[in-house]
Amino acid sequence: MNNIFVIGVGLIGGSFALDIKSHNSESRIYGIDKSEEHLDEALSLGVIDEKANFEDLNKADLVIVAIPVDATLEVLPKVLDQVSEHAIVFDAGSTKEDICLKVKQHPKRRNYLAAHPIAGTEYSGPSAAIKGLYKNKTNIICEVEDTAFKLQEKALKLFSELGMRIRYMNPKAHDKHIAYVSHLSHISSFMLGKTVIEKEKNERDIFDMAGSGFESTVRLAKSSPAMWTPIFEQNKTNVIETLEEYINNLKHFKQLMESGDFEAVYNEMETTNHIKEILNGNQ
Amino acid sequence: MNNIFVIGVGLIGGSFALDIKSHNSESRIYGIDKSEEHLDEALSLGVIDEKANFEDLNKADLVIVAIPVDATLEVLPKVLDQVSEHAIVFDAGSTKEDICLKVKQHPKRRNYLAAHPIAGTEYSGPSAAIKGLYKNKTNIICEVEDTAFKLQEKALKLFSELGMRIRYMNPKAHDKHIAYVSHLSHISSFMLGKTVIEKEKNERDIFDMAGSGFESTVRLAKSSPAMWTPIFEQNKTNVIETLEEYINNLKHFKQLMESGDFEAVYNEMETTNHIKEILNGNQ
Repeated sequence: MNNIFVIGVGLIGGSFALDIKSHNSESRIYGIDKSEEHLDEALSLGVIDEKANFEDLNKADLVIVAIPVDATLEVLPKVLDQVSEHAIVFDAGSTKEDICLKVKQHPKRRNYLAAHPIAGTEYSGPSAAIKGLYKNKTNIICEVEDTAFKLQEKALKLFSELGMRIRYMNPKAHDKHIAYVSHLSHISSFMLGKTVIEKEKNERDIFDMAGSGFESTVRLAKSSPAMWTPIFEQNKTNVIETLEEYINNLKHFKQLMESGDFEAVYNEMETTNHIKEILNGNQ
Repeated sequence: MNNIFVIGVGLIGGSFALDIKSHNSESRIYGIDKSEEHLDEALSLGVIDEKANFEDLNKADLVIVAIPVDATLEVLPKVLDQVSEHAIVFDAGSTKEDICLKVKQHPKRRNYLAAHPIAGTEYSGPSAAIKGLYKNKTNIICEVEDTAFKLQEKALKLFSELGMRIRYMNPKAHDKHIAYVSHLSHISSFMLGKTVIEKEKNERDIFDMAGSGFESTVRLAKSSPAMWTPIFEQNKTNVIETLEEYINNLKHFKQLMESGDFEAVYNEMETTNHIKEILNGNQ
């Protein structure tokens, strides 16, 4: 795979570009982005080798679509329209149901692999791209049976070179579970940031009191609204469900505090403590 | 200050012990703890030099009280009863109002400095103690005028050697603001962990989907319930107020999603984004 096209030269697309280049120096990375500024930045940072257009996609061996999920709905069918029979196209979107549905009937559906690499940071843009971002990260692949077998093989070889673990899942299950382990954390973090900023807006010194715990919990509130708004929109039903459960748990905790039942408050925390072992995979 | 007594040889007390030892090799660190196991562990890890009892406190130059805030209410007056006129005693509790009130009338009040070093990790016990924990961290000191001037000086010299920044605050203001920048984050994290565990308890593989974002947001849910329950109890009124505002913000976000107003959803995130600059001190 020598001609690699990256659509969206930000953190996700850019990090793929850097890793692919370092694993295969023969490959030439073409960048496509709606922001000319981002393209120039990616070029000067060595994230891409060359700027390109949609018309050039016919010479692509691999196309990575790494743009907000609303834009993916628009762009993915057009990409499939352009690519040759031997090209593999994958996306990196944090929702899968709407995207898979959008190209279900596309004549080149078998050139597309629906992917969600669980990797990233709270930063964005070409300068946020880093080598090795995907090492030891999980990549969720949906509807694998709808991708041509030889193209699956190519993509899986690449993911394996980058050090990723693969999990197969249907788009509905993906969107439901990812709402809990990813989308909800972003909202909890944004609203925590909002609550504290609102309260403390006139007391700038207060943030001197914030320790590493607060920073960790509020880290995701630095994330890009342009990326996250369409994710919440596409995964609306699942996200609302997680929010409802989260709000109910918070209300319950507050009620226990109000009624002075601190034994129950203790138990609430004690039973959640085993998140340690769960996250270490020792459950 | 040669005879240093650490009451509670866990993460906080143990880290003070390690730093003091490395800055002053002359000092001898005595450990007091209700857990004999922790004392043995602290001894074998070199966190303390010797086990001790309350009766030995009369030879102390410095006493650090680093135990849960409910235990501090019991222990601090007894410590003050025992120490000599030239000893300085400080605590490290995450609440200050109840503790300051408890010793307000104590005949040795001027031997006590009310402190809250904003430092820690989600781990606990002697093995969690680390050198350099306090470097560049904020230490909030309350009612400084109630501590004897010469003893203030000793404590401040120590904090300065350890690399801490000092902020002065009254206990009421401390408890109110710390509820926002610390206590609320712990509850948001515990309840996030609870929500996800409840939902996914039968689907262990799901945690493979959790990325670094989830881990960061849920990190504080690994914290010790024995430490945090009495903090929430002592700071009940303030914490309930923060929880109320947090729940209202989450409900509002959910309503915006339900009504399909994703422009407003975008704005909610956009206005919170500047938490970046706030945490970097560039506001």
